[in-house]
Amino acid sequence: MTDAGAEAARRLDLLSQASEPGPGVTRLPFTPEHRAALDLLSGWMEEAGLAVTLDDAGTLVGRLEGPAGASTLYMGSHQDSVREGGAFDGIAGIVLPLLALERLSARGIRLLFAVELLAFADEEGVRFPTALLGSRALAGTANAAALDLADRDGVTVEAALRGFGLNPDRIPLIAQQRASALGFIETHIEQGPVLERAGEALGIVTAISGIERHAITLSGETGHAGTLPMEGRRDALVGAAELVLAVRRIAAQRAGLRGTVGALEVHPGVVNAVPDRVRLTAEFRAPEDALREAAGEELHRVAGEIARSHGLRVEAARTYAQPAQPCDPHLSAALGEAVAATGGQGLRLPSGATHDASAMADFCPVAMLFVRCRDGVSHRPEEHAEPDDLGAAVAALETFLTRFDPSAP
Amino acid sequence: MTDAGAEAARRLDLLSQASEPGPGVTRLPFTPEHRAALDLLSGWMEEAGLAVTLDDAGTLVGRLEGPAGASTLYMGSHQDSVREGGAFDGIAGIVLPLLALERLSARGIRLLFAVELLAFADEEGVRFPTALLGSRALAGTANAAALDLADRDGVTVEAALRGFGLNPDRIPLIAQQRASALGFIETHIEQGPVLERAGEALGIVTAISGIERHAITLSGETGHAGTLPMEGRRDALVGAAELVLAVRRIAAQRAGLRGTVGALEVHPGVVNAVPDRVRLTAEFRAPEDALREAAGEELHRVAGEIARSHGLRVEAARTYAQPAQPCDPHLSAALGEAVAATGGQGLRLPSGATHDASAMADFCPVAMLFVRCRDGVSHRPEEHAEPDDLGAAVAALETFLTRFDPSAP
Repeated sequence: MTDAGAEAARRLDLLSQASEPGPGVTRLPFTPEHRAALDLLSGWMEEAGLAVTLDDAGTLVGRLEGPAGASTLYMGSHQDSVREGGAFDGIAGIVLPLLALERLSARGIRLLFAVELLAFADEEGVRFPTALLGSRALAGTANAAALDLADRDGVTVEAALRGFGLNPDRIPLIAQQRASALGFIETHIEQGPVLERAGEALGIVTAISGIERHAITLSGETGHAGTLPMEGRRDALVGAAELVLAVRRIAAQRAGLRGTVGALEVHPGVVNAVPDRVRLTAEFRAPEDALREAAGEELHRVAGEIARSHGLRVEAARTYAQPAQPCDPHLSAALGEAVAATGGQGLRLPSGATHDASAMADFCPVAMLFVRCRDGVSHRPEEHAEPDDLGAAVAALETFLTRFDPSAP
Repeated sequence: MTDAGAEAARRLDLLSQASEPGPGVTRLPFTPEHRAALDLLSGWMEEAGLAVTLDDAGTLVGRLEGPAGASTLYMGSHQDSVREGGAFDGIAGIVLPLLALERLSARGIRLLFAVELLAFADEEGVRFPTALLGSRALAGTANAAALDLADRDGVTVEAALRGFGLNPDRIPLIAQQRASALGFIETHIEQGPVLERAGEALGIVTAISGIERHAITLSGETGHAGTLPMEGRRDALVGAAELVLAVRRIAAQRAGLRGTVGALEVHPGVVNAVPDRVRLTAEFRAPEDALREAAGEELHRVAGEIARSHGLRVEAARTYAQPAQPCDPHLSAALGEAVAATGGQGLRLPSGATHDASAMADFCPVAMLFVRCRDGVSHRPEEHAEPDDLGAAVAALETFLTRFDPSAP
């Protein structure tokens, strides 16, 4: 049997050539590059004995039949990349379980359940201002209005689907025709440095972090930087600087919490005028909603204190909130045991980013296997996972599939 | 005799109508509005018995002859405003000494020296990317290359001067033809809140503060705001926030020093990415060069410390430096005594802004009389000085002119 890690790397390299020209990988949904990736994937799926279909949301489905009447375990991830992204994000989560299924087949092992391997068309939401198209359709949570959203060339989601030979009218049927599922296992590069720092190839996701975003405006008074004494200044940027440090402090005090001020704009923004207005964004993410919500409340309280101490006016609004999605304890424990059985620690960590599993959680229990990536980098051409780590993931998934017993309590 | 403050307010109101349409006053050099202001000013100068000429840099000169062979005291300020500026900045420094001269003339008092009242065409540098045109010409420091600079319609300084009936070729003669001067007294609204806070109508400027500006770039590493743990982040905005607070702290620790971060830009500037680069400006002003230079050096040292503690790279450069211009102690003492004799305290304060006196200091001793303005506001339509304060300035200037003895040691 070939080395699974080397084979995974070879296939990911082939798939990376299904890309628009330019640095890294650019493979957007319902494009010729998408078609080229599906051609490669469906070829390998068929060789592995899977029955291949394409659903009307563009999800490639490779079905491995189980015993009569058996339920189905879903596996997979998304085929699309960001613009000038990497060769691993998403697509590795299709290739790695496919290799695990191939190896089981080669060993003549029959599973206690059916498996459907999924290659979602669009998770990144880069081409259209909507995301998670395939996983939402499968979970029955697709928003019909999203079909009218257009890409930058004015092509709507609906037109893109039809151009790809699909019938968007039948998207609601995708969920309706599914029988009950055992769960969804998503394999994905970590997109962060936690596994690398811990010296672990693989990790088990505890939860997909919830997100909340805040828009904060601090308003003071401008004045001539030379004529206005320091005492009594109402400098909006001084207040904003304290708030940036407060976000950092709030997040650093609580394990699992992440806090970032990503955008900050200064008015009037000239060298010799005291700033009278700063707008900034603050984002918190945490695997537990209570942790995140407490951070958001502390942010508003601290913003009020800062404003009072500098004579500023503050407007603070929570503009977005998405609850955390805990992973299924049973599936996660089984995945963790498989990692441990194949030489890993089974380190637990939250996922700071959203994934197809977030949408699939509306349909069935979910669990995620994270694979170490170099320097925590993703969404860039330099994105990289070592063949050995890819091989470790294949081995863990193979062990998981072999051992997983859906009838166990 | 009419109330000098009310008369000053009436004339400044008339002059404020020499403006482009729109909020506040917009009176740029070598425009019909400039001409309209000069018509009003030269009319009043002639009524006051001054001999009126226009030099080739566009400076209106009203000369009051003194005893035979007497030296000349210069007074005045600039006629131009910023766009949508106020009715006091600059122009009050022409109207107030003119009223003082009128009142001396009405009282039949003859001075021990000649006086030339100057209305400079351009101090603000708003129309052209150069400033202090008239005062530099008079001081003999005009830069010939400035004649080629163009306004936003492509009209050069040279073309604007010729269109105004002036001969730029003769600008070098302006300084050459001047005899030695006793000094230059500039009266100006404070443009800051120091006099208002102190409850004083008038103040004596100790020095025109020097200025230095720094461009600082902090570079770290970007990453996904959800997947990158707080520990080990190299967030350029967190470093920049500490630097903003350091500038504030450095300036607040030392009397007379002012420190401002006016501009700050964040890259990539999106809600869910850790900032990898922040560019900011820092400006220090102080009436003593050693104080300002020490602040600039501390800024670079602190920026290095911040960069080290957050794993950032720092590029810091001093991009501009202008030394402080101390006012003449003898003239300033005489002005202060005149303020005290007319009911004020003679409060001393630095000027944070640059003035025509900065350029005139290359030609003769300078002193400045500051007039309280409402809320410290200037360069805006709301700019305001109370008639009583304008009257106090006229009285102090009148007393100064009466008492000033150029032959005193």
